[in-house]
Amino acid sequence: MIGRLNHVAIAVPDLTAAAEQYRNALGASVGAPQDEPDHGVTVVFIELPNTKIELLYPLGEDSPINGFLEKNPSGGIHHICYEVDDIISARDHLLATGARVLGSGEPRIGAHGKPVLFLHPKDFNGCLVELEQV
Amino acid sequence: MIGRLNHVAIAVPDLTAAAEQYRNALGASVGAPQDEPDHGVTVVFIELPNTKIELLYPLGEDSPINGFLEKNPSGGIHHICYEVDDIISARDHLLATGARVLGSGEPRIGAHGKPVLFLHPKDFNGCLVELEQV
Repeated sequence: MIGRLNHVAIAVPDLTAAAEQYRNALGASVGAPQDEPDHGVTVVFIELPNTKIELLYPLGEDSPINGFLEKNPSGGIHHICYEVDDIISARDHLLATGARVLGSGEPRIGAHGKPVLFLHPKDFNGCLVELEQV
Repeated sequence: MIGRLNHVAIAVPDLTAAAEQYRNALGASVGAPQDEPDHGVTVVFIELPNTKIELLYPLGEDSPINGFLEKNPSGGIHHICYEVDDIISARDHLLATGARVLGSGEPRIGAHGKPVLFLHPKDFNGCLVELEQV
């Protein structure tokens, strides 16, 4: 069911410093910051040859990243995203196995303009898992 | 400098259950458990089309995963691994930027039989970063 690892998202306390570090210290291909007001984050995409790293920084007081950075002031890996072909079929299969979907349970349009869902971290070894229909 | 994302390592409190979940609930290609006594872990590799997930479970009392699971009883993402062409050159470049390398600073042979180093999580947005020479 799951396909490619679409991205690893890392919440960072200083987006400029983190982007500079990936560009200069790690020598990666780093994009410009993009505000995603619908998702309460500013994102910097790091293109690796086989997948992406997304650096996440809070945008606005209701950002879903605020609480994470309060608990993890140095930052940390926030979620991983797997691609699926059919998000409704994937969701229904997962629900049938007893896994919990966060929020309303209906896909919403994610930061890449595609339908996404998040799965409950307690059901997945402490990892917040995003599914993205590609 | 960094190349592919070689793997994402997830520490899990129940290796059999986690492997079953990736096989059945998430429909992934899941290998057999492999003991890695030199690294104090039992590993299950999950092959995605573009990278790997490694489920890590402690092997032995001195396992480097024991402390992580004590702090994170549900499990969690333990580290991410980036590939590099020349680990000594990568290390020296990173040291020159002020980043810290864990342990002796010399590469050791990792779970895939290749030279690896770990970078200090506090220098990398709270993420434990492994570099593997490929």
